[in-house]
Amino acid sequence: MTFQLSEKTFKVPVTLFTENRQRLVDSLKSKVPANSAVLLQGGIEKNRYNTDAADLPFRQESYFFWTFGVNESEFWGVIDVTSGKTVLFAPRLDPSYAIWDGKINDEKYFKEKYAVDEVIFNDTEQTIAQKLKGLAVKQVYLLRAENTDSGDVLAEPKFGGSQDFQLNTELLYKEMAELRVIKTEKEIDVMRYASKIASEAHRAAMKHMKPGLYEYQLESLFRHTSYYHGGCRHLAYTCIAASGCNGSVLHYGHANAPNDKFIKDGDMCLFDMGPEYNCYASDITTSFPSNGKFTEKQKIVYNAVLDANLAVLREAKVGVRWTDMHILSEKVILEHLKKAGLVVGDIDKAVEARVGAVFMPHGLGHLIGLDVHDCGGYMGDATPRSTLPGLKSLRTTRTLKERMAITIEPGCYFIDFLLDEALADPVKSAFLVKTEIDKYRGSGGVRIEDDVIIRAAGNENLSDLPRTVEEIENFMASGEWTDRTIESRVHEFLH
Amino acid sequence: MTFQLSEKTFKVPVTLFTENRQRLVDSLKSKVPANSAVLLQGGIEKNRYNTDAADLPFRQESYFFWTFGVNESEFWGVIDVTSGKTVLFAPRLDPSYAIWDGKINDEKYFKEKYAVDEVIFNDTEQTIAQKLKGLAVKQVYLLRAENTDSGDVLAEPKFGGSQDFQLNTELLYKEMAELRVIKTEKEIDVMRYASKIASEAHRAAMKHMKPGLYEYQLESLFRHTSYYHGGCRHLAYTCIAASGCNGSVLHYGHANAPNDKFIKDGDMCLFDMGPEYNCYASDITTSFPSNGKFTEKQKIVYNAVLDANLAVLREAKVGVRWTDMHILSEKVILEHLKKAGLVVGDIDKAVEARVGAVFMPHGLGHLIGLDVHDCGGYMGDATPRSTLPGLKSLRTTRTLKERMAITIEPGCYFIDFLLDEALADPVKSAFLVKTEIDKYRGSGGVRIEDDVIIRAAGNENLSDLPRTVEEIENFMASGEWTDRTIESRVHEFLH
Repeated sequence: MTFQLSEKTFKVPVTLFTENRQRLVDSLKSKVPANSAVLLQGGIEKNRYNTDAADLPFRQESYFFWTFGVNESEFWGVIDVTSGKTVLFAPRLDPSYAIWDGKINDEKYFKEKYAVDEVIFNDTEQTIAQKLKGLAVKQVYLLRAENTDSGDVLAEPKFGGSQDFQLNTELLYKEMAELRVIKTEKEIDVMRYASKIASEAHRAAMKHMKPGLYEYQLESLFRHTSYYHGGCRHLAYTCIAASGCNGSVLHYGHANAPNDKFIKDGDMCLFDMGPEYNCYASDITTSFPSNGKFTEKQKIVYNAVLDANLAVLREAKVGVRWTDMHILSEKVILEHLKKAGLVVGDIDKAVEARVGAVFMPHGLGHLIGLDVHDCGGYMGDATPRSTLPGLKSLRTTRTLKERMAITIEPGCYFIDFLLDEALADPVKSAFLVKTEIDKYRGSGGVRIEDDVIIRAAGNENLSDLPRTVEEIENFMASGEWTDRTIESRVHEFLH
Repeated sequence: MTFQLSEKTFKVPVTLFTENRQRLVDSLKSKVPANSAVLLQGGIEKNRYNTDAADLPFRQESYFFWTFGVNESEFWGVIDVTSGKTVLFAPRLDPSYAIWDGKINDEKYFKEKYAVDEVIFNDTEQTIAQKLKGLAVKQVYLLRAENTDSGDVLAEPKFGGSQDFQLNTELLYKEMAELRVIKTEKEIDVMRYASKIASEAHRAAMKHMKPGLYEYQLESLFRHTSYYHGGCRHLAYTCIAASGCNGSVLHYGHANAPNDKFIKDGDMCLFDMGPEYNCYASDITTSFPSNGKFTEKQKIVYNAVLDANLAVLREAKVGVRWTDMHILSEKVILEHLKKAGLVVGDIDKAVEARVGAVFMPHGLGHLIGLDVHDCGGYMGDATPRSTLPGLKSLRTTRTLKERMAITIEPGCYFIDFLLDEALADPVKSAFLVKTEIDKYRGSGGVRIEDDVIIRAAGNENLSDLPRTVEEIENFMASGEWTDRTIESRVHEFLH
């Protein structure tokens, strides 16, 4: 056992992490010389600025978590590649920890909790180096990991005595990121649970919705449902609880646009929210009318996006390039907009002119796992990042493989900035019907996002929500949705 | 207007911050030469590790927030001490911000929002230096702020062209921290609101409590109530939702002890939780039985702590040293324990032998404001930090002044580690009745914490909760406590 918040939440087996470590050893064995070891540093708890407090507790760094499943701050870990032997280095806690923070656990406790071969308290600056020498290690592989979306770098760790080893900071990132891209069934089990909880929390928000509330109140209910019923203390990302025109602000909900709008009758809502469970992310978007009844215009946009979502879910097969799925979703949406009179002309040519990106400027979806935008999107057989509108925002261009976890999240938005730019562009404007488009301005947008596991035998959609217009209207109109309802649905899922 | 999340939440006037800036100018004027300016750097939004996401949005650094009230990331601010003129430097946002994050505001918008004299986009590395030169500034005062609790330091900011000025990193910390210690009435208004919301959320948790729930479920309800009804998106610190024996783990609730215990019938609960509103903290602790009915032993401990809380609230007058209040609370608690047979002997001598710290190892309370453990605790007339048990944990030793905001949070705990140590100590054990104390082991502890404004005319307690045994039992036994109840109580408070 590594983690289960309570009897009411999912039990994450420690074998998830022993399997990950075994995969890493198997992958490295043929690539490294004898006497090689992996050394990883876990995250360190940080307070706000120079204070001594934070509003949420420590959350482990994802590469370290993937390898060891350790929830605690200030751990290090070693894997001897030759023997497969694993060692965790735990911080030595001051005896006063027993007063302030609870029981001080011994080596045996951590050894059993994390199923490693040995646990050593990291007492001196040389503890790790001494152990490595004891294992006859000569080459030490350290993680220096870029992030292809943010450009941020996780720097390789510094440790005492490192000058006595040959250090390599190149190999590990490529190996670990690639392993993280393909999920194990044990990882998928956790992600399935996180998405189930996200789905229940989205249902709770839909049921609770009525004009007259503020957006943040639904964010609050979502967070509460995820934690109270699902044991998800952390979110995978900042909640987007947009209504009306805010639906067209793609990353709405941040500190400068804090989900603070009054929700009006007739507003379309776009809620992009996902909790994480034991560090595994969910990322789900629902779009629905605040009053539970779609207008004809809302139906047009909604069905365009839903059709794109379903087309991609169907076509996103092993071996298919994600870029092609992005183009497919653009085509489906543009066909719908053409039928509704907002777009004219040949749709293939419209796609070529990047008209699709006027309505959907973001990427179709991204790898998901321990990070909501998971690593490895531009590794493997990825083509280089495009410079074209829409396509440049793709977080991966790879071909799909069995057990990749990816979001499918087409959207259609009416963003003045982009519409004005396109209408002023002779190439793009030839495909656009200004008078019709103008009728949709200010209405925001629609996004429908699912978390999907790519399966040769047919993709598995981890989300579980009312999705058609009819399903949504029926769900929002039908009876009570109580804590008891949610509890029994989660219970049923778990047992 | 600087901030109001919605019509349902408190409206923070921009004059709160113009008044703070005026106080800073008034305080600095006599201490700095002509041509001096203050330059402050705001916080910068950070993602988790090397990723591109975070679970909560940006939260401003407290010194910068105190001065400018700016919610946004990457701002700088200048105050010309001679003229009092204020300039904000805003980050230049990429045009794509309009697609991803929303409206790009101009200088005029920020000038009005934050009531400063000028807003300049921070376009080049020299923008700030050029402006300083334009103001004929020669000396620049930068903030380098220590934290006397964590020891962490907020480093002075680096800015282009700084070599052309005389830099001072000494003065500002002392001045600003001291100003932050004494709250203005406008700051107190916000803190009163935050404490009101915290009180309502604690009431919600008490009403919802029943054996069979898990601790984290009450944390979740607390967070939800604070946000849904109070607009508090952030907490001031990690929630402690302890039950039974966990009540004696003073900082319970962290990642290694994540409020995951099943709450049993007969458990005493100790909930130390506080949201923040527009960065102003609350920090309140309630202690109550999970089943709504105190046992005789629970009453003994509870009344000891309540009596200490009330004694301090009464005696914590302007001019009184906080250390003396700590000692007073120890005495009151020990007198109760003596009456109940757990302690024997002369109470003054017991205090001298630091027996009080066996039962209350933490400090009596701390300054509170923009940080839950606010700055300045060891400035002014503070005596040096003690090395004695209990007293060494005091976050301030100052004498009290009008409009200080401080928590009063005596506690009484049964911590095996400390009891065993004390019973093995010939001096301390002379005051302890082992057989009686042993009956309380494993029962956890009690803490009663209020947020209090020191007033010459009589202290103002910002908390608003059932506190006596009778009040708590009546409150937990009486009728419904619904969203509507809370909404109307908050509404009544605001209007």
